[in-house]
Amino acid sequence: MKLTILGCYSATPRTFTNPTSQVLEINNHTFLIDCGEGTQVELRRNKVKFSRIKHIFISHLHGDHFFGLIGLVSTFRMLSRDIPLHIHGPKGIKEAITLQLKLSSSWTDYPLHFHELTSTESEVVFEDETIIVKTIPLQHRVYCNGFLFQEKPGDRKLLMSKVMNYDIDKAYYRSIKKGKDVTLDDGTIVPNEELTDDPKPTKSYAYCSDTRYDEAKISLIKDVTALYHESTFLESHKHLCATTGHSSAIEAATIAKKANVGTLILGHYSTRYDNIGLFREEAKTVFDNVEIGDDGEVFEF
Amino acid sequence: MKLTILGCYSATPRTFTNPTSQVLEINNHTFLIDCGEGTQVELRRNKVKFSRIKHIFISHLHGDHFFGLIGLVSTFRMLSRDIPLHIHGPKGIKEAITLQLKLSSSWTDYPLHFHELTSTESEVVFEDETIIVKTIPLQHRVYCNGFLFQEKPGDRKLLMSKVMNYDIDKAYYRSIKKGKDVTLDDGTIVPNEELTDDPKPTKSYAYCSDTRYDEAKISLIKDVTALYHESTFLESHKHLCATTGHSSAIEAATIAKKANVGTLILGHYSTRYDNIGLFREEAKTVFDNVEIGDDGEVFEF
Repeated sequence: MKLTILGCYSATPRTFTNPTSQVLEINNHTFLIDCGEGTQVELRRNKVKFSRIKHIFISHLHGDHFFGLIGLVSTFRMLSRDIPLHIHGPKGIKEAITLQLKLSSSWTDYPLHFHELTSTESEVVFEDETIIVKTIPLQHRVYCNGFLFQEKPGDRKLLMSKVMNYDIDKAYYRSIKKGKDVTLDDGTIVPNEELTDDPKPTKSYAYCSDTRYDEAKISLIKDVTALYHESTFLESHKHLCATTGHSSAIEAATIAKKANVGTLILGHYSTRYDNIGLFREEAKTVFDNVEIGDDGEVFEF
Repeated sequence: MKLTILGCYSATPRTFTNPTSQVLEINNHTFLIDCGEGTQVELRRNKVKFSRIKHIFISHLHGDHFFGLIGLVSTFRMLSRDIPLHIHGPKGIKEAITLQLKLSSSWTDYPLHFHELTSTESEVVFEDETIIVKTIPLQHRVYCNGFLFQEKPGDRKLLMSKVMNYDIDKAYYRSIKKGKDVTLDDGTIVPNEELTDDPKPTKSYAYCSDTRYDEAKISLIKDVTALYHESTFLESHKHLCATTGHSSAIEAATIAKKANVGTLILGHYSTRYDNIGLFREEAKTVFDNVEIGDDGEVFEF
């Protein structure tokens, strides 16, 4: 599981910082999460192959999270893309993109599928054999979802030394790996736990931006391998969290601690701060395993 | 008159080249012309003060000329702008911008005025005491206008040595500077040409992107100080001009020659070319005073 931060600063793009966008590579998928202005250039800079991106997840329709989407959709067309693109985001995103395509007389030649979100409950937005993606309802000034990416557990591991103690036909191995007990010819039941070990642990990633402090999501993101949680403000400006619908570093760390996550990655820093190291310092007073997200940073889990 | 090229490459933004946008500073105005994705970052990089921009002129609604507009409009809001902004562009531009403002619940606090263009004849889009801005109808795949920025002639220069030959009351100086003859007390008429010299020559700038070769605009841009004319293709790809609605370097130079312009600035290069110096080489076979536009380049006239 590899996370590349393309941009993780709030509000406006600046000369050396980018608005929110990140790429999650997991189980042979390349998911793009949010798409602030300039994302297509950051994808190039970070050598992410455009054709690998088949799903884009947009948290909400504030500009610093989606103004780069129309440019990317258009560039895909100019690069003669023919594979489908799926865009998952709040209701309205289809109208915003298609209106601009219409005005520029630039319909895509590739299939463009919009999956508009309206639910305030967590829902599955993508699923295949190895992975499931769910929304994480967030509390912001506008309708907003985080996204939870979870590997599905693989098969249980056959303990051949144990299996060999019995006369078990190979045809049963597949069902044993799936967790089934075995009934021998004499009617004896061999419990699955005796024959198998747990599958390798699954990895999971939770993306939570933008949101005010809200414990409702904790049960959803419990025990994730890595949590990206926005931390727009330091303690010195924590009074701004409530009105702006954002979190402080300490609030992000509190969520991480209560959800027992593996690693907390901070981001969405207000551009008023020069030293983003202070976000880690403050978060670490609550939760130990804190990483500072920054543009171009790569995290592997 | 100072022209700053923020971006002058066609199609998609890339790591080191930007789509079209430029800033024209003339007679105390700072006009923004076109606004491809990333323009707000290029404005910062080129140290253009955001608050100086009161008029934005958009040639057409292809993404490489206007996808940066919504981001800039939003950033102005976040920077607490309160002075009005005027956006001049093709019909549809208002809907594209206001829909996105609505979806992001981010109405501007400053007055935002749209001046939508539909005419296929040249028309005045802005005028004050010292300057006039007119559209230059262009021939592209979609409705498209260039823009002509013309200084108005100043007052004629009083030749005091000549004025002193007569008994002329100072109260008449203003009308003499405006070109009026003087009638002396004895009825003698002193012609204005005897008392004044021509005002200092006016400067003018014509922006023509995107357009196929079209001589109809020549009378409009006749004798301009500087002409920016798109040159998307070299001779090796000139067969692409007709279908894409673009010009070659030689076609741009031919227009410059026939319009007797002072300086031709080339731009809107196809990103297929590595050496943009070739555009000058080809243009120079037709017209001598050719400059190569490039991102971050500044031209003063």
